[in-house]
Amino acid sequence: MSRAEDTQRKILEAAEAEFARMGLHGARVDEIARRAEVNKRMLYAYFGNKEQLYAAVLTRVYGRMAQTEKSWISLDLPAEQTLCEVIRLYFSFLAGDPSFVRMLLWENLNDAASIRATDAGSLKAPALKALTDTVERGVREGVFREDIDPGSTALSVNMCCFSYFSNIHTMSHLMARDLTDPAAVSAYAHHITEMILRFLKK
Amino acid sequence: MSRAEDTQRKILEAAEAEFARMGLHGARVDEIARRAEVNKRMLYAYFGNKEQLYAAVLTRVYGRMAQTEKSWISLDLPAEQTLCEVIRLYFSFLAGDPSFVRMLLWENLNDAASIRATDAGSLKAPALKALTDTVERGVREGVFREDIDPGSTALSVNMCCFSYFSNIHTMSHLMARDLTDPAAVSAYAHHITEMILRFLKK
Repeated sequence: MSRAEDTQRKILEAAEAEFARMGLHGARVDEIARRAEVNKRMLYAYFGNKEQLYAAVLTRVYGRMAQTEKSWISLDLPAEQTLCEVIRLYFSFLAGDPSFVRMLLWENLNDAASIRATDAGSLKAPALKALTDTVERGVREGVFREDIDPGSTALSVNMCCFSYFSNIHTMSHLMARDLTDPAAVSAYAHHITEMILRFLKK
Repeated sequence: MSRAEDTQRKILEAAEAEFARMGLHGARVDEIARRAEVNKRMLYAYFGNKEQLYAAVLTRVYGRMAQTEKSWISLDLPAEQTLCEVIRLYFSFLAGDPSFVRMLLWENLNDAASIRATDAGSLKAPALKALTDTVERGVREGVFREDIDPGSTALSVNMCCFSYFSNIHTMSHLMARDLTDPAAVSAYAHHITEMILRFLKK
């Protein structure tokens, strides 16, 4: 890795920590530069302005999710097992990446303005297509029902996994259960897998 | 309504608009006082400080949800129909109350600190209990399977409804579908109802 790449990586790491904590509006470029141990002039030279740096962080976190998604997109398994593996991987990824979860919470509060302005959408597209393809494949395999909307199913698979982690603090308190406990995560992943498969299967 | 109550209501409405837009840290008390057309001294006299005002807003939005939940908790319908009605009411409430959705996004970013410090939890408790009771009742009625965790089901009913609205901006873009369209909301509510019932039913 060149010195320039190393500096850019340091800036992105510092920026992700600060944006995940404070959001686009609350984060301070001074603090990011301090954490990254660079001066602000260099930060601006590499990333333009605060909005562009935030967009680069968003692309970076969607990139990590896309990397995880690649590992099941290429799987050559029957549709039912593919979905089990998708849900297992989403729970595992989300449990280990609270920064991804926070960035998406911020971006929804931000009316998805930065996602619209970047190529983060193209990073998510292969997995959404692969999910709808998997549902259609399950129908062809004779395992899934025919009267299913693959798009809504792709959405609910994503939402059933993501919402557990994006609401983990409020719901842990409201349900008086520690939802961050690995046994609770694993039990809920099982619950969601069963729910999705019972919905799809004949 | 007395003059004092009217002033407090005006402050809460202004505070909700500002906190929903900017969050606890981003909101400015000056702006809330300006919107409410009161001076800051009066605002502090009624609500203490910014954190206490934010907590009062959070209790207020949970109160609206609790009001909606009351309308199905008292229903005397078979378990299956009760769940259909719950999901219908959640979708209808959430579609019409973006401020509730934003306040919960903020509060999750806030690690649920204010919910822990207030009685908002007690506002949600009756609905969570009624949901688990409904699942157990469905088992007794012989309509739902016996090997179901009612707590996880109560959680997923809430999450399946809420996550559609809390992710509506990012997912509309990523799926290239306008998820705010009433027809899309209605189709997804139907999808979730079917998913939950297929999961529960024998």
